[in-house]
Amino acid sequence: MNENAILHIPESKFCFALKSNEICLRLRVSKLDFPDKVRVVYGGKYSYALTREFAEMQRQSEDRLFAYYTVTLKLSDVRFVYVFEITYGDKVYYYSEDGLSEKFDFELSYYNCFQYAYINECDIIKSVEWMKTATFYQIFVERFNMGNRDKDKSYINMQWGDIPNPKSFAGGDIKGITEKLSYLKNLGINALYLTPVFRSVSNHKYDISDYYDIDGQFGNKEQLRELIDKAHSMGIRVVLDAVFNHCSENLSQFQDVLKKGRKSEFYDWFIITNDEPLEYECFAACAYMPKFNTSNPEVCRYLIDIATYWIKEFDIDGWRLDVSDEVSHDFWRQFRKAVKAVKPDCVLIGENWHDANIYLRGDQFDSIMNYAFTKACLDFYAFGEFNAQSIADKLNEILMRNTDTINGMMLNLLDTHDTHRFLTRVNGDRDKLMSALALTYFFPGAPCIYYGTENAMEGGYDPDCRRTFDWTLENKDSPVKSLIRTLASLKHSEDFASAAVRIYSENGLLVVERGIYKLTVNESGENKKHSSAKPVAANGYGAGILKNGGFIAERTKY
Amino acid sequence: MNENAILHIPESKFCFALKSNEICLRLRVSKLDFPDKVRVVYGGKYSYALTREFAEMQRQSEDRLFAYYTVTLKLSDVRFVYVFEITYGDKVYYYSEDGLSEKFDFELSYYNCFQYAYINECDIIKSVEWMKTATFYQIFVERFNMGNRDKDKSYINMQWGDIPNPKSFAGGDIKGITEKLSYLKNLGINALYLTPVFRSVSNHKYDISDYYDIDGQFGNKEQLRELIDKAHSMGIRVVLDAVFNHCSENLSQFQDVLKKGRKSEFYDWFIITNDEPLEYECFAACAYMPKFNTSNPEVCRYLIDIATYWIKEFDIDGWRLDVSDEVSHDFWRQFRKAVKAVKPDCVLIGENWHDANIYLRGDQFDSIMNYAFTKACLDFYAFGEFNAQSIADKLNEILMRNTDTINGMMLNLLDTHDTHRFLTRVNGDRDKLMSALALTYFFPGAPCIYYGTENAMEGGYDPDCRRTFDWTLENKDSPVKSLIRTLASLKHSEDFASAAVRIYSENGLLVVERGIYKLTVNESGENKKHSSAKPVAANGYGAGILKNGGFIAERTKY
Repeated sequence: MNENAILHIPESKFCFALKSNEICLRLRVSKLDFPDKVRVVYGGKYSYALTREFAEMQRQSEDRLFAYYTVTLKLSDVRFVYVFEITYGDKVYYYSEDGLSEKFDFELSYYNCFQYAYINECDIIKSVEWMKTATFYQIFVERFNMGNRDKDKSYINMQWGDIPNPKSFAGGDIKGITEKLSYLKNLGINALYLTPVFRSVSNHKYDISDYYDIDGQFGNKEQLRELIDKAHSMGIRVVLDAVFNHCSENLSQFQDVLKKGRKSEFYDWFIITNDEPLEYECFAACAYMPKFNTSNPEVCRYLIDIATYWIKEFDIDGWRLDVSDEVSHDFWRQFRKAVKAVKPDCVLIGENWHDANIYLRGDQFDSIMNYAFTKACLDFYAFGEFNAQSIADKLNEILMRNTDTINGMMLNLLDTHDTHRFLTRVNGDRDKLMSALALTYFFPGAPCIYYGTENAMEGGYDPDCRRTFDWTLENKDSPVKSLIRTLASLKHSEDFASAAVRIYSENGLLVVERGIYKLTVNESGENKKHSSAKPVAANGYGAGILKNGGFIAERTKY
Repeated sequence: MNENAILHIPESKFCFALKSNEICLRLRVSKLDFPDKVRVVYGGKYSYALTREFAEMQRQSEDRLFAYYTVTLKLSDVRFVYVFEITYGDKVYYYSEDGLSEKFDFELSYYNCFQYAYINECDIIKSVEWMKTATFYQIFVERFNMGNRDKDKSYINMQWGDIPNPKSFAGGDIKGITEKLSYLKNLGINALYLTPVFRSVSNHKYDISDYYDIDGQFGNKEQLRELIDKAHSMGIRVVLDAVFNHCSENLSQFQDVLKKGRKSEFYDWFIITNDEPLEYECFAACAYMPKFNTSNPEVCRYLIDIATYWIKEFDIDGWRLDVSDEVSHDFWRQFRKAVKAVKPDCVLIGENWHDANIYLRGDQFDSIMNYAFTKACLDFYAFGEFNAQSIADKLNEILMRNTDTINGMMLNLLDTHDTHRFLTRVNGDRDKLMSALALTYFFPGAPCIYYGTENAMEGGYDPDCRRTFDWTLENKDSPVKSLIRTLASLKHSEDFASAAVRIYSENGLLVVERGIYKLTVNESGENKKHSSAKPVAANGYGAGILKNGGFIAERTKY
């Protein structure tokens, strides 16, 4: 037995409340020498020495090194204490805060059992229910569609369809999105994530100079309201992009600092490291994007007021939080409270590329942009690093980074405005794209398609991944579009959305089960030593979703 | 190499900021096959693909299974990203968010390196500086000393010196403490923790019916003010006991619910599970102590106002938080903000018997009552479960539960009003008590002596651990008193308090090094198979602190 592998952390992703009397437990052990039986020995904090209950834990998943046992318990006493009883052959061990031992003294257990001392309602991680059936579409507004053809077009400096450079303006706008809501609805989209729409001189508008106004190139408040109202009437949610890490140097408060230096009332709004010449913290190395000082309560109030304004006045359904990992936890806690007080099911999606568990414990975000999922798909489909077994391991590892509640709200994506397009990463192989899309829809959380993916749009790193949408393809059907529609209808069904997931490899295939649904993916990576896996024959329900791709979706009976 | 043992968790006790440009890293590996070299490969988030720095990590400590490597880095770019480089013989491995690998692609590291994306000032765990040299004394007020001999004594139902029962009243009060401040000062005490002093019908007063008044048996507000002012003038801090998990059934708000049921405006102040007959959540199984509903914002405001009132009006130096593990995290976050806004160095000490890391990340408590330390001492000195090696392992494991900042504020204790007295647990062996006291003062954090320990007071579980103080011994010196004074003078010196700790076993001795100070403890447990360890000869600085105990404190040169 590999004792080093055993891990449990109280009040964490290893032990979390689902309801005020329901708790989920996870125990990690070695994948190689897993136990014959794992039980949790649990009870009430004040009666544990006298009476205890037992529940067997099930082996739920495996990653490269570890197996995870889980159980969900309904509690009569929510002052929950527990130890694990692990059986290997005829040996029984106890695992407590003191580690593994052959005996455990329940009389003294108040010193060293695990505990979740009381489930307080306000600490339970809440689910944004609509995220369970959400199918997102990310729009880089400048490049999606120009709806307002009467506007002053003097700023436009490229032809629609040309390859953009970092300073290109093509003319996309909010009205252009509103015009295409039916197209998106028809594609199976029920949620939009728009890159920033507020006043800014750049094409991407991540350098905002007025958070209370819509950029004139994109439209105005009335047009945003029209977009949101129409989207809502069609059952489509709208998530906007909140850039609260930094602003534009043109923000009036920063301009005031430039003028008055230390005498400016906004001097402490930024993180100024030298007065003469002025030096200050900024986003990346971009001096035109000064960083906000979110350790300053005034700045917190200013930004939170912005966040609640757009919810109260325009009824937006969520905020995607730009560079959220560089903003203080303290700010995000205040931010969440304020936003959720106004609209409890307003989703908060951090731009955290890394393990963000510390942000995802119920007090900060609901979700992040799941770039760990992106990387797993790239390692499998593009880089030849993974075979079916290793992507299954990695996907399971990603799911064990957070609670099931959070996993159900993750924004799973193959690419964004900040990456190469996935199709370009897989050298234009549409079968791989389609296979990866199926995986994206089957993985727990909400899939997010980057605009144009349905047209097999290509593009390298920024600005190439921000090309204009090709509307000549609007009415042409294609296997990719057809697949996206099929996957969306699956994802919108409650039984699919609420089904537990099981991910493993079998006969060289990656298998993702969700209740009665099953996705099998063959090894299509460039890792030639695993290329012996056969393409899967289509059969049963879902056959024909994709004929020439390396996957099928089938409905099986158990 | 045991890959299963390797562990690092970003933004946790494994990676924490000490200052706005200083970060501490920990890496856990197997104790048995530890690496030849461990380096952190680090850099700025936006330049990591191009330029990186290296820093070697040192093996700082070991517990039963694991060795911990650490390093503290001064950062020029606080957007900190990193991976570990682990060398075994001629093999070099990288450890990143994707686990262990033989190669690491720094070009794609934005997907899978570790990160602490930005050190925001407000997220840094702050130290309450005075805790570093604090030597606490816990007073169970009812039993320490009666100062007001003119009061109405009709409630007193036991003779001072008799053995108490659960309903005994002996007459101890606040004035009694004030009278003995010089005695305590002389014993080397510079901080008091008092059990509750607010209005309550019980002798322990953990069932409070008026949080804004001092119980008449104990005195009045003027007498509390006098105690605190006099203590402060003598350099002694005063920490009071905050019972915010539950109250007394006599609290007016609960009485209102009893009278009006659902129609009471305070109905949601408690967690009522049935109306007829009234059933509600309470502390343990004590119906006379109804639990507060801290998911209700009104309750939060009420309790926080109480907490800040006693700080603002009486200048108390901290709150010990009763049953803090059953109160919501959300409440404690609000509570901390409010308290620290009034008095930043007001210490917050949770009554958490278990691993409380989730409470100790800078947003909730500064410290907890360190019962894991208590249990380690019991396993070594009382239960015969530990030898020198196993207590060294356990003490190191306890230190790895939290950041160094938090470790420096832990309240380390051998016993309290909720346990057997330590001396009784070791069957009256004063040498063991003295050895354990020395360990308590040497361990990182603030030692806390339970009243009467200096007199070798005995007592079993509550109420026996709450006997009256024997003032006939006030002016008699004893080895225990002398030791406590010696240890206090050591603890009050800045060089001792700020010295890094190293704990290990050597030749059957437990060794605790703090800079130039060194404590060696022989195996005095009942574990006979380890009894071959020789008593340590006294030599060098500190020799003679204790002659007949199983330890010495010596000053060595390095």
